[in-house]
Amino acid sequence: MATIITGIGVKDVRFPTSRAGDGSDAMNPNPDHSLAYAILYTNTPRLEGHGITFTIGPGTELVTAAISAYAPLLVGQSVDSIFENMGSFWRQLVSFSPLRWLGPEKGVVHLAVAAVTNALWDLYGKILKKPVWKILSDLSPAQLVQLVDFRYIDDVLKEDEALDILTRAEPDKMAREDRVRGTGYPAYTTSAGWIGYSDAKFRTLLEEKLSLGWRAFKIKVGQDLDDNVRRASMFREIAGDDVALMFDANQVWNVDEAIAHVRHLAQFNPVWIEEPTSPDDVLGHARIAQAISPIGVATGEHCHNRIMFKQLFQLTAIRYCQLDACRLGGINEALAVLLMAAKFGVPVCPHAGALGLREVQQHLSIFDYIAVSGSLDGQMLEFANNYEEAFISPAQIHEGHYLVPTTAGLGVDLNAEAYEKYEYPNGSVWSAQLV
Amino acid sequence: MATIITGIGVKDVRFPTSRAGDGSDAMNPNPDHSLAYAILYTNTPRLEGHGITFTIGPGTELVTAAISAYAPLLVGQSVDSIFENMGSFWRQLVSFSPLRWLGPEKGVVHLAVAAVTNALWDLYGKILKKPVWKILSDLSPAQLVQLVDFRYIDDVLKEDEALDILTRAEPDKMAREDRVRGTGYPAYTTSAGWIGYSDAKFRTLLEEKLSLGWRAFKIKVGQDLDDNVRRASMFREIAGDDVALMFDANQVWNVDEAIAHVRHLAQFNPVWIEEPTSPDDVLGHARIAQAISPIGVATGEHCHNRIMFKQLFQLTAIRYCQLDACRLGGINEALAVLLMAAKFGVPVCPHAGALGLREVQQHLSIFDYIAVSGSLDGQMLEFANNYEEAFISPAQIHEGHYLVPTTAGLGVDLNAEAYEKYEYPNGSVWSAQLV
Repeated sequence: MATIITGIGVKDVRFPTSRAGDGSDAMNPNPDHSLAYAILYTNTPRLEGHGITFTIGPGTELVTAAISAYAPLLVGQSVDSIFENMGSFWRQLVSFSPLRWLGPEKGVVHLAVAAVTNALWDLYGKILKKPVWKILSDLSPAQLVQLVDFRYIDDVLKEDEALDILTRAEPDKMAREDRVRGTGYPAYTTSAGWIGYSDAKFRTLLEEKLSLGWRAFKIKVGQDLDDNVRRASMFREIAGDDVALMFDANQVWNVDEAIAHVRHLAQFNPVWIEEPTSPDDVLGHARIAQAISPIGVATGEHCHNRIMFKQLFQLTAIRYCQLDACRLGGINEALAVLLMAAKFGVPVCPHAGALGLREVQQHLSIFDYIAVSGSLDGQMLEFANNYEEAFISPAQIHEGHYLVPTTAGLGVDLNAEAYEKYEYPNGSVWSAQLV
Repeated sequence: MATIITGIGVKDVRFPTSRAGDGSDAMNPNPDHSLAYAILYTNTPRLEGHGITFTIGPGTELVTAAISAYAPLLVGQSVDSIFENMGSFWRQLVSFSPLRWLGPEKGVVHLAVAAVTNALWDLYGKILKKPVWKILSDLSPAQLVQLVDFRYIDDVLKEDEALDILTRAEPDKMAREDRVRGTGYPAYTTSAGWIGYSDAKFRTLLEEKLSLGWRAFKIKVGQDLDDNVRRASMFREIAGDDVALMFDANQVWNVDEAIAHVRHLAQFNPVWIEEPTSPDDVLGHARIAQAISPIGVATGEHCHNRIMFKQLFQLTAIRYCQLDACRLGGINEALAVLLMAAKFGVPVCPHAGALGLREVQQHLSIFDYIAVSGSLDGQMLEFANNYEEAFISPAQIHEGHYLVPTTAGLGVDLNAEAYEKYEYPNGSVWSAQLV
């Protein structure tokens, strides 16, 4: 029996991370890490596709409303027919003219496209009984290329080139799959370095994570250079010189400020500076990259589509590509960016420092290693531990590596208890507060 | 008595323009031109600020929901205290972290910031009993500079430079104000050239508008080169060679396609090609601009913030700046773009080919002429006639020129009959359809 999408539901789920300062950074002092779910109901009982995008509290209701606005394009469709030509279906989603006007391909409507697209992949994975990374890895180069919308990027990546990249990776796919199943995928953690943590908490968490085998850390930096220097000094004092350190400014600087700050922070030998300025400023990133080399520039969590990444690659403006399949229009557009990153030789280090994101992006990194870049050189996947217990199949970490997920689909389904507690506004955590 | 904002209302008003093909283009075949209103209620009876952003039908409800999400920043504030430091108030709006996450400074949340900001200016104008262009023109250079958020643009435009630009324009402000009050502001019309019109309708409208004194026209083009050539040939046959012609592709081409198409269309001597490709592709616009010179590249209606315009200016990627105070974050951010355009000597030709937009953008163009660029060289303001009767004080045209508006505020208030007919979903035009 063909699986038909019979309806779309949405869930607005907010976790009170701000209460402990988790997730805090220079731009977002009090984020409540939240997920907007697109839930695809089908004609098969209990078979549902769950896809997410990520938000930080108020405004999540705008994204769930946008997800609902895409329902007319989905309800009544068969999953098989969608995936027979998933590339052109995705193009239909982003081309729905009145919603496109509100972007185009950016902001709330594109976050909704991400959730919907990810829900389709989750549903497809549940039908095929495979995790999404495995579905993608098992597709042929010709099938993968069909998933990509080359509109607006074909001046830099043509379909033929994409096919060449994938075909070159083809012979050793199985060997790499075996390897990553054995060793896991290298990760770094952001969980020690949120900007709202006290120095004492930072020290405790850092020591704890070092003892768990973590060898790469990201810490948040801000406008106050003294604070940044103090925190980075503590890091090197505790962790030593052989542990990788990344800085994340969360867009807090103008271009010239970024250059000046990073020159001061160079003494701590960071791998990268992340989001040094506005994510829209491609030329600004290029100038910063040139000025602060050999420290790399990293960005991506707010790069909203393949066209922005295209330009960052064209100008050698980033040394690390932090794509996010929940900010881009889901798995399909992430694939376009992975292919461009491979063409330009830029390591892929997805944005995954939050609940839900880590569950989604692991599929990208593992698939990229197996079937696109074929490389682990400079590639690391972000991790943050928080609310793992809310997920039926949370991402698994061992000694600073992601274990390859085995659950069918995308693995973002929440358990019943999580909904009871965190769904907004009626979950117990929120309804208690609203009384 | 101080005027206090006591509440925010929203209105979702949709005009059924698609029924006649009005507004149709290559990317948007069936737009229903719509307005999302932010309405600021005050402690003074009947004193309300009305601000808009522009949409094309479904999805307008996402923007009105976003406007409501900004209410906590506005309700209870006094208008005087907001305008004592309107620049930093605007910065607070765009920096509200959880909503910023959904952009940043783009898409649905930024459209909402536009509506809210424009509503504040409308309210301020009604209090001062001045149209917004006049308030702005009467401010000193130092006061104007305080309205601008230089964040992310100060590598290209520093506050001092902005002050210099405005100070240079200061001595002749009165003379230019007198002149534009006398002659009006030069305009072009888009109303003959919507892509969904038959050739017969195109011919009739073109002849009618020529007889009304119009001497500059924009026509929509699309993927079909033969159609584009036929329509452009008709234009030159009817209008002759002395009438200005602009083409608008509404983002329908990739970079290489754009270059190839425009080379074919060069024979019709167009002033510009508008939106040749994705509005996010700054480098693509630069390449097109270089390839098709002396035809100019124009874009802006989908350039979502000052950072995107900054880069277009840095790369000489556009010859005409089509900013839109309803896509940018309202009057404040438009001012930042006007200043950069003046610095780079790029003529300002705002996006105004629709109801509501023409009413708003006339304030920008007139103010720019009086107090910023001081020039009419290459500058034209778009116009489209449609549903003027819905507005209490619609924009006024005489012989291809906008007459200087005299109504206090922004002039976007609708009359009661318009709400009865067009408010969505309960207006008579829509409720009849939904039965």
